Amino acid sequence: MAATDRSWPDFNDPGLLDARQAALLIDQYELAMAASYLRRDMNETSVFELFVRSLPRNRHWLLAAGLGPTLRLVQGLSFGDAELEYVGRQGFDPGFVDYLGDFRFSGDVEALPEGTIFFANEPILRVTAPRIEGQLLETLLLNQLNVQTVVATKAARIVLAAGSGEPGAGERVVDFSPRRDHGIDAAMKAARSAAIAGCGGTSNVAAAMRYGLRPVGTMAHSYVMSFPSEREAFRAFLADHPGDTTLLVDTYDTLEGVRNAIAAAEEAGAELAGIRLDSGDLESLSRAARTLLDDAGLESTRIAASGDLHEGRIAELVAAGAPIDLWGVGTDLGTSRDSPVVNGVYKLVADRGSGGDWRDMVKRSEAKATVPGAKQVFRRSAGGEMAGDVIARADEDLEGEPLLVPAMRGGETVAAESLDEIRARATKQLASLPKRLRAPAADDEPEAYPVAYSQRLAASVA
Amino acid sequence: MAATDRSWPDFNDPGLLDARQAALLIDQYELAMAASYLRRDMNETSVFELFVRSLPRNRHWLLAAGLGPTLRLVQGLSFGDAELEYVGRQGFDPGFVDYLGDFRFSGDVEALPEGTIFFANEPILRVTAPRIEGQLLETLLLNQLNVQTVVATKAARIVLAAGSGEPGAGERVVDFSPRRDHGIDAAMKAARSAAIAGCGGTSNVAAAMRYGLRPVGTMAHSYVMSFPSEREAFRAFLADHPGDTTLLVDTYDTLEGVRNAIAAAEEAGAELAGIRLDSGDLESLSRAARTLLDDAGLESTRIAASGDLHEGRIAELVAAGAPIDLWGVGTDLGTSRDSPVVNGVYKLVADRGSGGDWRDMVKRSEAKATVPGAKQVFRRSAGGEMAGDVIARADEDLEGEPLLVPAMRGGETVAAESLDEIRARATKQLASLPKRLRAPAADDEPEAYPVAYSQRLAASVA
Repeated sequence: MAATDRSWPDFNDPGLLDARQAALLIDQYELAMAASYLRRDMNETSVFELFVRSLPRNRHWLLAAGLGPTLRLVQGLSFGDAELEYVGRQGFDPGFVDYLGDFRFSGDVEALPEGTIFFANEPILRVTAPRIEGQLLETLLLNQLNVQTVVATKAARIVLAAGSGEPGAGERVVDFSPRRDHGIDAAMKAARSAAIAGCGGTSNVAAAMRYGLRPVGTMAHSYVMSFPSEREAFRAFLADHPGDTTLLVDTYDTLEGVRNAIAAAEEAGAELAGIRLDSGDLESLSRAARTLLDDAGLESTRIAASGDLHEGRIAELVAAGAPIDLWGVGTDLGTSRDSPVVNGVYKLVADRGSGGDWRDMVKRSEAKATVPGAKQVFRRSAGGEMAGDVIARADEDLEGEPLLVPAMRGGETVAAESLDEIRARATKQLASLPKRLRAPAADDEPEAYPVAYSQRLAASVA
Repeated sequence: MAATDRSWPDFNDPGLLDARQAALLIDQYELAMAASYLRRDMNETSVFELFVRSLPRNRHWLLAAGLGPTLRLVQGLSFGDAELEYVGRQGFDPGFVDYLGDFRFSGDVEALPEGTIFFANEPILRVTAPRIEGQLLETLLLNQLNVQTVVATKAARIVLAAGSGEPGAGERVVDFSPRRDHGIDAAMKAARSAAIAGCGGTSNVAAAMRYGLRPVGTMAHSYVMSFPSEREAFRAFLADHPGDTTLLVDTYDTLEGVRNAIAAAEEAGAELAGIRLDSGDLESLSRAARTLLDDAGLESTRIAASGDLHEGRIAELVAAGAPIDLWGVGTDLGTSRDSPVVNGVYKLVADRGSGGDWRDMVKRSEAKATVPGAKQVFRRSAGGEMAGDVIARADEDLEGEPLLVPAMRGGETVAAESLDEIRARATKQLASLPKRLRAPAADDEPEAYPVAYSQRLAASVA
């Protein structure tokens, strides 16, 4: 709606953003609406909820992730001078530009803690704030929470696949995704989301440094090719990185590579911590490699596998008993290739009218109706297993655990959780997920997890 | 391979990076290999090539994008003090940490200009640099070029769908993707990549500001719901944003919404630039809306469509003659949902041995062989149409246009291209693409575009 502005463009700008610049990571219409609300003094307290309308393809549940970094962004959100000047040049009121210049989020947020399993139509985040503030958060909240939930869910599925349906195998799954993730922010968040799901490390050094994760890596084919022979390459790498060294054995002939790795370790008098298989038939190669290693007395040398692995293939290899100790997963984990989208939406569900009374908001677009009013989700368990959820009005008090908890008060985060806390929650949640819902993607469609509306909420929709 | 470090972790860090921090957006093994090369003085000039091994699902060609911002990142790459300290604490040699402290990329790059169509096995970027420098770029180059090529290709497919197979309709396609893109970097790059493909604007204000794109937006349902009636909301928005105003008409009943939009514009004495349909049967609703608008004398009011549109649906609506003037595309454009991965790889193809002579590098992993030697791609055209490519050795001079051109010399970018230059190239390339390759995804498999190896290159593989 505003005219093109070409006085500053730098089409080759890398486009990375610090937190201040993130304020304009916003859809244009948020600014247009906000300017109109401000002009009309329509800044009453309002309630927005974030939820998914339906579960994505190949997904029977989702694992919430991203809340901590997202709220940190929200808490620090402000518009810099360059951003304000740009907004002003788009034709917005000077009063609105001044408002943005003073902008700090002052509202309350309730949310599902990270590492919580959720389902369609369940609010995972609720913002209660002046209407303009709530509106201005929409794009950033969705941009950040959608992708982190996508990757955490996929990583959890991979962890379950590696553990025959149990979440304990996470330490044997490693994030190898930075080269396939959709940009730098996605790579950072993929490593973090994988850690929430239980993964034991990441190849992404920046993420390992920022988040305190275990950096993991072996060698590339180019290293082996840079030496006159594979065995020389192995000897060099063992000498330069003594200790926890994994050798990549498939540059030329895989089993010959295993033999070279064994010989190089003997020659160097070094421990061979692991070998990595990156191509070929991983089941037969891992068995043959295991035999070669065991025959050489290297029973504790681990076999790592990589190379376009996906959750279904991992499950097959585990079921077949392939002796693989570590799974390096890139593309499938970081892009959630079979289902790369969580269709989160952010909807106004209530506001205080000009009279000060709370009003529920109703929208009745075809196939896109929104259930009105602030909501809470209650989860019942039975025998250590999740048994059913009820979406209720926020002021109801029903049986079960209420899932939405305070996350921000007056624009300040209530409590930041540590990785250990979040990961423990995710592990517990995955262990309480009904077994029929833990199968790899594209298996038979299981009976859906029961999610119902409370009687009061159902009555308000009808 | 290095030990866990937990002295600095901030698990709630938003994880955004400035260019300096991007240096550690690297796989751990790049550091391990580089440290070993440095210790062994194996820093001879080497050649690495970036290419895709096979075309992704539902793609018969790819549109190169991302080179400009990526080379800008490479040119600015350096390791900050905190990053160096972290690397040192992982157990790397102090000499290697010093090397990283002085790191600046000093090599040469040849590349396909952005907006060039390419195919499997064709190098799109070739790095000639000291081995360590070339190796350290791998992760960042792939992370950045993969996603931008994914989105530019998808956006080009949407542009073709909107134009019945011709690229001229790009101005009628708008990027609505920031809420679905995989993070902030992805959202910035999605807007830029869409612009390369010909799209006429973006809802992403940060990207519009950075890249000089046209910011585009209308209103959300929450705006309409914030007023006592739809018509009041429309009158307010028309008053607050006179000029190029588009009203969202499907909050309650779509055709009633169109009538309210017409009435509100009349009452406000304002021009109704457009209406937007976001749900329902877009073919019948657009026809009915067109009739209502025309009957009111609003022949120039445009109809915009949005709501989980994808290239196949757009092609159907265009083929059916639905009177839709503008396509707002989010998820499909920004995540390339049906094919979210370009499996780019970065391989060592030649180096100077310790004697100083060039050596071709051969890798023979099962199903993952790499063709040795520095390469060039020659493209023949016939009658304004691309007729076939030949991948040759870099020193060959064959018929056709050589696609790889100088992009960096001695660590400095040779020339940054403007959006207009790149978009013009992309439009020309799409117009010269054989028609059989322009159909929407998941149509019948067309005859593949011919790509061959030159005789000399074929001989060196055999």
